[in-house]
Amino acid sequence: MEAYALIMAGGAGQRMAAEMPKQFLLLHGQPILMHTISAFYQYRSTIKLLLVIPRQQEDLWLKLCRQYAFDLPHLLAYGGNERFDSVRNGLQKIAESEGFDAGNSLIAIHDAVRPMVGTDLIGACFETAQRYGSSVPVTPLVDSLRRREGEWSLAEDRKDFCAVQTPQVFWAKDLLEAYKQPYSPSFTDDASVMEAVGHRIRLVEGHRRNIKITVPEDLLLAEYWLKQSK
Amino acid sequence: MEAYALIMAGGAGQRMAAEMPKQFLLLHGQPILMHTISAFYQYRSTIKLLLVIPRQQEDLWLKLCRQYAFDLPHLLAYGGNERFDSVRNGLQKIAESEGFDAGNSLIAIHDAVRPMVGTDLIGACFETAQRYGSSVPVTPLVDSLRRREGEWSLAEDRKDFCAVQTPQVFWAKDLLEAYKQPYSPSFTDDASVMEAVGHRIRLVEGHRRNIKITVPEDLLLAEYWLKQSK
Repeated sequence: MEAYALIMAGGAGQRMAAEMPKQFLLLHGQPILMHTISAFYQYRSTIKLLLVIPRQQEDLWLKLCRQYAFDLPHLLAYGGNERFDSVRNGLQKIAESEGFDAGNSLIAIHDAVRPMVGTDLIGACFETAQRYGSSVPVTPLVDSLRRREGEWSLAEDRKDFCAVQTPQVFWAKDLLEAYKQPYSPSFTDDASVMEAVGHRIRLVEGHRRNIKITVPEDLLLAEYWLKQSK
Repeated sequence: MEAYALIMAGGAGQRMAAEMPKQFLLLHGQPILMHTISAFYQYRSTIKLLLVIPRQQEDLWLKLCRQYAFDLPHLLAYGGNERFDSVRNGLQKIAESEGFDAGNSLIAIHDAVRPMVGTDLIGACFETAQRYGSSVPVTPLVDSLRRREGEWSLAEDRKDFCAVQTPQVFWAKDLLEAYKQPYSPSFTDDASVMEAVGHRIRLVEGHRRNIKITVPEDLLLAEYWLKQSK
């Protein structure tokens, strides 16, 4: 089995850098995205990694790589209008890459701004997908849950549900096939794309610390956990 | 309309203080619980407040009140085995208190470890309950959601759901009546108790910062937000 990782760092629709894109913010003295890429190489040094990035951020990324002497190899593809388009661009580039064998490759699709993903979780996702054809890491819901009915609501049991993280891992041939379908607004992640063409989605126990860094306080938490784990 | 607040600081089942109960940890130099109680007095200085606390924590709480010269008035009731029993104990004490009028009183039930609740949110919850008979503050789900089917899963649209906070506000007579029913494990909060006897639950827009402090990093976030709001 060959392992690929597709790291999703945003699409063409992202606002031009009035502020620094989250994946380039410093975490423990290094851009977040470098932590994320490093985690996949720590899992497996032979992994083949492709980064999907907005076209207008390419120069900045290459500059950061020089500045931080970051030399882990990775292909680049550009983001599209929707996340769906960005993933498709990335898959296409993988499909065209040298030595690619769709029938013997698993592809992990991961958010660039989840740098706290550990090698254990990456490993569990690859192993589960190899066995069951799909894997999605999930965590229990922390708060009580209600179903919205306009301004009113109905009780739901939070234990019946789970919160979804990445990496989400699937066989390359299945992903390439699923991403031939037209875009739907119901596609919120890769599992929903795969499910729409009939694949069942297997769960893996995710990690509470594998957060998506989207607001400043997320960065505060990530710094805290990194300090703790030293 | 008379306003009551029932502050829930844990039941008899809580482990004896091998570690300091969360509601007594310092936030901005003062025990969390004092921030919580103060918020309700800031909303309305005439509010009548009752604190439900494990019996074995009473001495510590009284000592902390002296130490921090905390003199906001409040009744005390003891926690029971389940949260349901604790709320029932508190309601009973309110029902026996001087001047209580079940037909003209709203009761807000709130987690002691949600000190970041603001007067705006408390006000919105009381106003909504006065108008519609119930109110529960909720926030949108941050992560994608899936429904568990054993080790497998099904897509759900997170926009159909919401995460529940407190304070949850209801008419006193309705609460007293609802808490006569026998305990069920499906009672995860007061809304679920009210719903079980036929009340509809009205939603109020909650606040992202109104977090429940349960792990050390929650305290880190609360400190961060308090510093920001200065």
